[in-house]
Amino acid sequence: MLTDFGLRDHYAGVMKGVIASIAPEARVIDLTHGVPAQSVAAGAIALAQSWRYFPRGTIFLAVVDPGVGAARRAIAVETRAGARMVGPDNGLLSLAARQAQVKRVVELKAARFRLTRVSSTFHGRDVFAPAAAHLWMGAPLESFGPRRAAIEKLEPDRPTRHRNRLAGSVIYVDGFGNLVTNIDRPSVGRLRASFPGRRLLVTIEGGAAIRIVDTYAAVPAGAPLATFGSFELLEIAVRDASAAEFFGAGEAARVTVSVSA
Amino acid sequence: MLTDFGLRDHYAGVMKGVIASIAPEARVIDLTHGVPAQSVAAGAIALAQSWRYFPRGTIFLAVVDPGVGAARRAIAVETRAGARMVGPDNGLLSLAARQAQVKRVVELKAARFRLTRVSSTFHGRDVFAPAAAHLWMGAPLESFGPRRAAIEKLEPDRPTRHRNRLAGSVIYVDGFGNLVTNIDRPSVGRLRASFPGRRLLVTIEGGAAIRIVDTYAAVPAGAPLATFGSFELLEIAVRDASAAEFFGAGEAARVTVSVSA
Amino acid sequence: MLTDFGLRDHYAGVMKGVIASIAPEARVIDLTHGVPAQSVAAGAIALAQSWRYFPRGTIFLAVVDPGVGAARRAIAVETRAGARMVGPDNGLLSLAARQAQVKRVVELKAARFRLTRVSSTFHGRDVFAPAAAHLWMGAPLESFGPRRAAIEKLEPDRPTRHRNRLAGSVIYVDGFGNLVTNIDRPSVGRLRASFPGRRLLVTIEGGAAIRIVDTYAAVPAGAPLATFGSFELLEIAVRDASAAEFFGAGEAARVTVSVSA
Repeated sequence: MLTDFGLRDHYAGVMKGVIASIAPEARVIDLTHGVPAQSVAAGAIALAQSWRYFPRGTIFLAVVDPGVGAARRAIAVETRAGARMVGPDNGLLSLAARQAQVKRVVELKAARFRLTRVSSTFHGRDVFAPAAAHLWMGAPLESFGPRRAAIEKLEPDRPTRHRNRLAGSVIYVDGFGNLVTNIDRPSVGRLRASFPGRRLLVTIEGGAAIRIVDTYAAVPAGAPLATFGSFELLEIAVRDASAAEFFGAGEAARVTVSVSA
Repeated sequence: MLTDFGLRDHYAGVMKGVIASIAPEARVIDLTHGVPAQSVAAGAIALAQSWRYFPRGTIFLAVVDPGVGAARRAIAVETRAGARMVGPDNGLLSLAARQAQVKRVVELKAARFRLTRVSSTFHGRDVFAPAAAHLWMGAPLESFGPRRAAIEKLEPDRPTRHRNRLAGSVIYVDGFGNLVTNIDRPSVGRLRASFPGRRLLVTIEGGAAIRIVDTYAAVPAGAPLATFGSFELLEIAVRDASAAEFFGAGEAARVTVSVSA
Repeated sequence: MLTDFGLRDHYAGVMKGVIASIAPEARVIDLTHGVPAQSVAAGAIALAQSWRYFPRGTIFLAVVDPGVGAARRAIAVETRAGARMVGPDNGLLSLAARQAQVKRVVELKAARFRLTRVSSTFHGRDVFAPAAAHLWMGAPLESFGPRRAAIEKLEPDRPTRHRNRLAGSVIYVDGFGNLVTNIDRPSVGRLRASFPGRRLLVTIEGGAAIRIVDTYAAVPAGAPLATFGSFELLEIAVRDASAAEFFGAGEAARVTVSVSA
């Protein structure tokens, strides 16, 4: 389960009750309920960074759903990599689904796989949790509703390559205040290969140059650094502190990797 | 499990250790540990809104216990609907137990179903978790202690019907800042039926009129709305934002549904 | 699992995915993910206060790891009490391991018990979670790497006994704002025995005297108190409120137990 419901309320807990009622043997793992409220992009990134660490065949039940009760579809996705995903068709599933390669998509329409009364505000409980549970119990994908050709896509900004620099942005701020960018290791590798022997420097919002290092431990406590994080994306961090606070920066902040003069 | 222990500390985790020690096969589901500290009323509402979504026979272990170490009883409740509940007898269980219809109540007194040392501050670990685990293992209800005729009741304010309006209040503020009121759908339905063809308007703390709509999507982003939430109670919300912040209002704020002129 | 990853991000969830991929039948219990960021001492205290409430043979997977990517070792510990512990060798495991009595320690070096690619920032996912899962699956301790003679110790301050007083400090502030000190019940008992018939008073940062009582209920709401908490350490609390806020005090605040004049 991945939601933006937080852990203050009983909403995520109620969804687990629904699952246990339908699929008593199903194991439920909380991926996170701490996605920033209604941030489809942050949820999509978290799911994309996580799905491949779970057993083949895992059902990902994801609910970040600002359009609940409106026109957006409810879908289930089967992928070539084996992962299955259930959630609103608003882009939330799209990054992970693309990585896992979409095989089939159906719209969740069949009344028998929903709760009897479907509210207009809590499809997590009334539509998505029952669908995931019935899927786990072996209901075939086609029985949930009509096939759909494609799912809504989320197109996060890609870094732009200029002659001697890469221009990207912060796409995720984690709970430690680390600033995860959209600048991937291969892009930086290509920039480096074009300028052999030159040093690369990172700046955020045009500020002072930050070194790219291999580990946090390469700089003293309180000092900023850039490193390729655990998901192979360039992260800006401050050792033993919050980079978000240090730089006063958050999502969408501009990040540049440039070749030193 | 439902507690006000939060997830910062290891308290809820220790309770799960106690349960696993006694009932290694029991499945534990976190309903929530985010009940506002010592708010018996908020915990009671969360439990009342949740229990029916769990499998018949589920044991609800609920601990919001400002009177720990004092005179309040520790109880286990069996209900006609099949749900069982374990917790302090301070009203926390009362709303859910009334809905599920109380069948038998016992006071948790038997030393063999408690930890050897019972602290004066952590009955969740020393009394309630062991009781829930032993109950799950099949210990008969009567073996825990003497029968009690009734449990402490919590009487949340009910909305008051005046000739052409309903006066209620906010009883729960959720993590999204939605303001859940004690005004239920049938009461509003009766008001509407008395004034056919007239529109109903909602106000909070005597402010501007808010429309009752079916879905969040009926209003633009940033606009307030009133709707019957997923538990059939009138909620005041702001699309894609926090109503608690928008209105500067919280629990006990006065809410009125009135017939337009 | 005990970490400082919080529940906002998907990091703890990804670790559970790794465990489920290696040991699908393993039951994972969250002890807490709310250890204050990078606070090895707070994590060590939480683990020390918790391990004995879990079934014999439980594997404790603990990650509070400011030195990730640097020189600190990754270890697994076997104890005479049956508990096994996996985590960084930075003192995090030391308090619990001493209580449970260390039997054998190995360094986690074997590549086959790690993920294929080990990042420099997320050993929780790449090293510790796989080790715990393989240990659960029955891999013998020696197969993980070379034996080590000892583990890093954390030496929390002990209270100092003066003639007619004990000087200690706050070592943990819990989510309710209770101030847990390092002053244990036996030390206070010995002080009391030296001055029969005299009353003991507690002060924090040299402030007003606080009574030692048996239960929160012994004082009126809003009043401060000192009591031996559920882990047999002196705690300073305020009934139905936060002592941390009331006293404006936190970790390392000086606490004195003295004999009244």
